[in-house]
Amino acid sequence: MMPLTNQEQLLLEHFAQYISDHKKQFTEKVLAARTRQVTVVLEDIYQSQNASAALRTCECMGIQDIHIIENTTKYEVNKYVLKGSYKWLSLNRYKQKRINNTEACFRKLKENGYTLYATAPGDDNMSVYDVDPCTTKAAFIFGNELNGLSAYALAHADHRIKIPMYGFTESLNISASVAICLSAAIERLKHEQEKFGLSVEEKDRLRLDWYRKMVKRSEIIEKEFLRTNP
Amino acid sequence: MMPLTNQEQLLLEHFAQYISDHKKQFTEKVLAARTRQVTVVLEDIYQSQNASAALRTCECMGIQDIHIIENTTKYEVNKYVLKGSYKWLSLNRYKQKRINNTEACFRKLKENGYTLYATAPGDDNMSVYDVDPCTTKAAFIFGNELNGLSAYALAHADHRIKIPMYGFTESLNISASVAICLSAAIERLKHEQEKFGLSVEEKDRLRLDWYRKMVKRSEIIEKEFLRTNP
Repeated sequence: MMPLTNQEQLLLEHFAQYISDHKKQFTEKVLAARTRQVTVVLEDIYQSQNASAALRTCECMGIQDIHIIENTTKYEVNKYVLKGSYKWLSLNRYKQKRINNTEACFRKLKENGYTLYATAPGDDNMSVYDVDPCTTKAAFIFGNELNGLSAYALAHADHRIKIPMYGFTESLNISASVAICLSAAIERLKHEQEKFGLSVEEKDRLRLDWYRKMVKRSEIIEKEFLRTNP
Repeated sequence: MMPLTNQEQLLLEHFAQYISDHKKQFTEKVLAARTRQVTVVLEDIYQSQNASAALRTCECMGIQDIHIIENTTKYEVNKYVLKGSYKWLSLNRYKQKRINNTEACFRKLKENGYTLYATAPGDDNMSVYDVDPCTTKAAFIFGNELNGLSAYALAHADHRIKIPMYGFTESLNISASVAICLSAAIERLKHEQEKFGLSVEEKDRLRLDWYRKMVKRSEIIEKEFLRTNP
């Protein structure tokens, strides 16, 4: 990741004047706990409140990157469910026509060193509690409410994982599934949080991005700043 | 718990004729994994899909008893979300007028040896991952979406517990919260599942209860059986 240019660094400091110390401290706390060691992939989730609840859980858990695949279903947000979590996340959307967007997403994740864990029922699948997100980066992949993951996703993930269940009802909703997978992974990671946090450059970029969102009318302020500090 | 009477035992065997071997085997598997070592209390949850999603997660996780407190909010089910999980659970509802139903619920749980864990935000609260459901039985208590738990619940629980969170968004939805608390607890319990399963008498009662629900027109069959086997 590119370090901030001098101009961007100055812009960051300019924005900082508009943000309370309390909010800046909180931002640093969130940044310090942010991770890309774990990521979440949502494939064709069709209920907006489910995708939105999943995103909210990711933000709460300190996950930065979300991958949203839209082969058959358009992703839509439900702002009531999101509670503002949306704007702090990096959303990667895969929604080109006439290609398999799952393939495109998986290729990108593999290039970035992720092990792909497809969540799917099946007694023989690996338990989610056995996923080790410390040794290699982990991408948890969730399929749509009705049909689960696509055949492509199931065939091309590195592992199929199950959440152990013990009842007559053999399916959890997406929100519960995402929460269980992430909490198990993050609980394992957090003992080594420092190791799995973001790089200085990533934090700088994210800080600038977040400041832009925190400052009211930041576009106007930025435009004026760039005009007077070329 | 009272063992089955001879008549009830005969009734159970009578019902069993109407149930496939596959379903009976599955029932035994679910029964073997069922626990009362962990329970869930929902206090005045006002969105039916949230309470219903919580119940579904409980059933998936093998929790048998749910306690529903209705001081200010009537509990309503959302059958689409429940996916049939409802009928396999033992619901205990506290909804008397002019009393504090939370007090009534807590008294019953204390009499039954539960340690009460109130879920609430707060940096100083105990982490959910430090709850030990093996040493004493654990009741996880969840409050309403807007105001959280009542003052009474917070004051009279044995511990306040938090789910560690790392984002700007500092609240998980109920479905995610229930899933995280239960999965953490059940994962700890399951290594000693045998120890924390139900007694023979509890299993017998539950089996009879479940068979009644599995057999079509079981009321008519039961009435006829009792008439001819007094």
